[in-house]
Amino acid sequence: MTRPGDALTEMVAEIGLVDHHCHGIVPTALDRQGFEALLCEADGPGPWHGTLFDTRVGFAVRRLCAPLLDLPVGVEPEKYLARRRALGADEVARRLLRSTGIAAFLVDTGHAADELTTPSELARLAGGSAREVVRLESVAEEVIGTTAPSGFADACRDRLAAAGDAVAFKSIAAYRVGLDLAPQCPTEVEIAASAARWTATLDPGVPVRSADETVTRFLIWTAVDLGVPIQFHTGYGDADADLANCDPLLLTPLLRATAGRGVPIMLLHTYPFHRNAGYLAQVFDHVFVDVGLAMQNVGGRGGQVLSELLELAPFGSVLFSTDGYGLPELFPISTTFFRRALGAVLATGIDDGSWSFGDAERIGHLIGADNARRAYRLGG
Amino acid sequence: MTRPGDALTEMVAEIGLVDHHCHGIVPTALDRQGFEALLCEADGPGPWHGTLFDTRVGFAVRRLCAPLLDLPVGVEPEKYLARRRALGADEVARRLLRSTGIAAFLVDTGHAADELTTPSELARLAGGSAREVVRLESVAEEVIGTTAPSGFADACRDRLAAAGDAVAFKSIAAYRVGLDLAPQCPTEVEIAASAARWTATLDPGVPVRSADETVTRFLIWTAVDLGVPIQFHTGYGDADADLANCDPLLLTPLLRATAGRGVPIMLLHTYPFHRNAGYLAQVFDHVFVDVGLAMQNVGGRGGQVLSELLELAPFGSVLFSTDGYGLPELFPISTTFFRRALGAVLATGIDDGSWSFGDAERIGHLIGADNARRAYRLGG
Amino acid sequence: MTRPGDALTEMVAEIGLVDHHCHGIVPTALDRQGFEALLCEADGPGPWHGTLFDTRVGFAVRRLCAPLLDLPVGVEPEKYLARRRALGADEVARRLLRSTGIAAFLVDTGHAADELTTPSELARLAGGSAREVVRLESVAEEVIGTTAPSGFADACRDRLAAAGDAVAFKSIAAYRVGLDLAPQCPTEVEIAASAARWTATLDPGVPVRSADETVTRFLIWTAVDLGVPIQFHTGYGDADADLANCDPLLLTPLLRATAGRGVPIMLLHTYPFHRNAGYLAQVFDHVFVDVGLAMQNVGGRGGQVLSELLELAPFGSVLFSTDGYGLPELFPISTTFFRRALGAVLATGIDDGSWSFGDAERIGHLIGADNARRAYRLGG
Repeated sequence: MTRPGDALTEMVAEIGLVDHHCHGIVPTALDRQGFEALLCEADGPGPWHGTLFDTRVGFAVRRLCAPLLDLPVGVEPEKYLARRRALGADEVARRLLRSTGIAAFLVDTGHAADELTTPSELARLAGGSAREVVRLESVAEEVIGTTAPSGFADACRDRLAAAGDAVAFKSIAAYRVGLDLAPQCPTEVEIAASAARWTATLDPGVPVRSADETVTRFLIWTAVDLGVPIQFHTGYGDADADLANCDPLLLTPLLRATAGRGVPIMLLHTYPFHRNAGYLAQVFDHVFVDVGLAMQNVGGRGGQVLSELLELAPFGSVLFSTDGYGLPELFPISTTFFRRALGAVLATGIDDGSWSFGDAERIGHLIGADNARRAYRLGG
Repeated sequence: MTRPGDALTEMVAEIGLVDHHCHGIVPTALDRQGFEALLCEADGPGPWHGTLFDTRVGFAVRRLCAPLLDLPVGVEPEKYLARRRALGADEVARRLLRSTGIAAFLVDTGHAADELTTPSELARLAGGSAREVVRLESVAEEVIGTTAPSGFADACRDRLAAAGDAVAFKSIAAYRVGLDLAPQCPTEVEIAASAARWTATLDPGVPVRSADETVTRFLIWTAVDLGVPIQFHTGYGDADADLANCDPLLLTPLLRATAGRGVPIMLLHTYPFHRNAGYLAQVFDHVFVDVGLAMQNVGGRGGQVLSELLELAPFGSVLFSTDGYGLPELFPISTTFFRRALGAVLATGIDDGSWSFGDAERIGHLIGADNARRAYRLGG
Repeated sequence: MTRPGDALTEMVAEIGLVDHHCHGIVPTALDRQGFEALLCEADGPGPWHGTLFDTRVGFAVRRLCAPLLDLPVGVEPEKYLARRRALGADEVARRLLRSTGIAAFLVDTGHAADELTTPSELARLAGGSAREVVRLESVAEEVIGTTAPSGFADACRDRLAAAGDAVAFKSIAAYRVGLDLAPQCPTEVEIAASAARWTATLDPGVPVRSADETVTRFLIWTAVDLGVPIQFHTGYGDADADLANCDPLLLTPLLRATAGRGVPIMLLHTYPFHRNAGYLAQVFDHVFVDVGLAMQNVGGRGGQVLSELLELAPFGSVLFSTDGYGLPELFPISTTFFRRALGAVLATGIDDGSWSFGDAERIGHLIGADNARRAYRLGG
């Protein structure tokens, strides 16, 4: 892959990124087991593969993050973790997050909220702004059992309508029922019946879990009616989901049904189905796509992955995200690989005559920030 | 990717291509909306992504086609479209089509035939020859309702047998029933029953539409019996089809059932399932494959896509197509990207010691023309 | 792709590889038809595509293997085959196998055992060591009909427990019932019922064939209980399997069920689903992956394919195999392309700052040998 020229690298480095999908970070010290458990999508290191530092993201910690903590490039994991503890979680987060050049964070608060920083804490540490993304399934889990099943739908609608500060909703249908969703909004009767069935299974000793296909569709259509962008987990994540149920192509009937409703649909992650996602972004004007989690994990392969997404995806449809979660390290790693990947894609296009430097500049800003500002109506 | 040397570039540029899958072009002037609606697989520009000129194919119009209309490289869309109108559709088509070096066009006449040029008009504009490809579903749609259901099968057989000028048949099963077809030829009783059901739904106010799995299989097997090559839409197209139903692997049982019947099966487009298509081309001698529509859309990524197809596909199984439709621009764009991609693949193989220049020349001619001439018995 | 530097190339060339999945070779002379039938996954050459020498692997025979038989690079197929016959199968095998630098072969003896060399014969020809991999389905086929259905399970358990020299078991569930296996171990009653149904279909004139989903799962769980590594055919193979049933993602429920049982699961081949396989290797510590068969076939594309696998797969999870079968040529071809691919991946990572030379050396040895030695407990 051609290296971008100096001017292009500088241009890409100066984009004030909008991270349209991330989570909070762990605000406390982590031991090695705790750190490795947050490093990639494995639950943690096991007896067969050795340390999870032996991954592309693990090498990136030792090479990209170490200098930000005043350590030499490639420092050993134990030394890195010791330095991290010595500096303290707050200082480490501040250094790592502020290195990214991210201007705005859209923060998913629907998972492990009590263990992670809030959006405003993340913003404070990073020196940027933050907005909240509300998980649809979390709202249903809060509502179920607090009303009669016949009142479940209205109670959810009220709660979602009242989430006025949220910049978007997010669905983790992929983890709960898979993405092969029927395209219709369920009827009130169907919703009440599902709420009744779910209520009957509630058990004070067991965490409440929204995993009903009808309820999931109801939540999505309520969000559509509210006119707020909706993010979907698609593609690669941890082993709790079956990746075969996470191909964004499974959403095609729902995307067809929501076209023209004035609501953008964001397909998160998408890897290894990112070419499928690029297709969806081309044929559906309201579909936006990213490869954020992949960028975090694939290291020097980021240019290739982003190029594959951009084979079909219009330049006005692609977004940046870090999918940072837990470790502040994941923010500079995602961002560094993203800027390199974007620079490489744009430079290749200049070299092969696909576009001019000025075009590349405009495309770079669309993908890094402007598409997100437009789709989420962020202003700026 | 290594750039091909001058001799190789020249060799590839001189291949008189056989475009084994394309459509006619719109013979009249187009406004911006009309032009963008034909530019890629989106129905048209919408409120979220901005202009569809912000795609790889949109950039290619401004950069590759503009000079053919005496405009500077990278001209703005409005100026390009104004020049296009000033020159007139006929002159524009002549310039663009004649730049391609395509010797023969196999033209699918089954969609919007009254809005597009005929094969002979296309040939006249391009200065090449043209042959017709007849859509199986169109024939069924012409026959249904004109006979008793019990006579439907024979009437279709007669019509298909009489399509003696057609160089091939094409099935759009992917759009109508998906590619997950049972491999057996249906019985006469089954066909008549399907014809009866279909006839009962006919409504003078609604376009006739062949979308019955049994009828589809009957048409395919009739074509097999006639010994004529059969093209299948597979992979990427517009939003009318669910891409998940277009994976050519779904055809595996039918490919197994038709092996040894003496009829080539052509898998069109195939992207993003082109590696799957390459596998099918390796294990089934009667399967031919292309990545034409992708080549049109992916711009500088064409070398990568063609390389992926050629990981498993034997060199004797790969075909060239433009999948040009509506806009004459799509023909030089597909052709230019194809020649670059082919040149890059062949040059890389020379550089890494995979083959000699002479081998590369032979492979290039196989893929660009000779495989199609052999499979379609075109002579020349 | 950056070329590896001399030191790196030398380092990779000196890795004493562990070929964790291969078969025996044909110990007798082959005519052209016989040779081409073993060259790739096609059954043999047919009327449409021309000679199967017109594949990447076919070119590799003429370019990589020819000099090992004292022939010029790129020699014509007929001359190559004549020289092969003149030297004799034994001498040809010796020359080709000894060129590979493979130290240990894990040999699948479950297919066409009477036509192929045994593990010890292969080891003797190659000058390495060999261990046997026992096919689960073959054991069931030997046992069925020799006991009452009620004794089938225990008889299989005894046979598998007695396979003490086997370094691993292998399942070809992909070919027989597909990989969409239920995750539970069947009950004794279910196994006996399946054994009874299977027994009832036995016919002295027809080869015995294990193709029952319940029996397949029973065999796998028996292997799990024995604590022996289990290999699964996944991905690309010949036309006898439907590739759509070979996506390793279909194994997800079974992989989840076997996590923590202390038994490594090896996903063989995986192409074109190797990115899916890389995901599974990241989220399941007991999953190991390779792209051996692809490496044999894709020629100069090996670096790209291995890179894609290594986007998500931890460095501790990737294995080397040739998947050599029938032709000794396939061993040096796989090995040469693997070393080039590994060298290219490691060199690219050094060039782009992902890791140091020392890291690359360690990763190279993990993938080439050490992961296999650890997973199969080979020692050395």
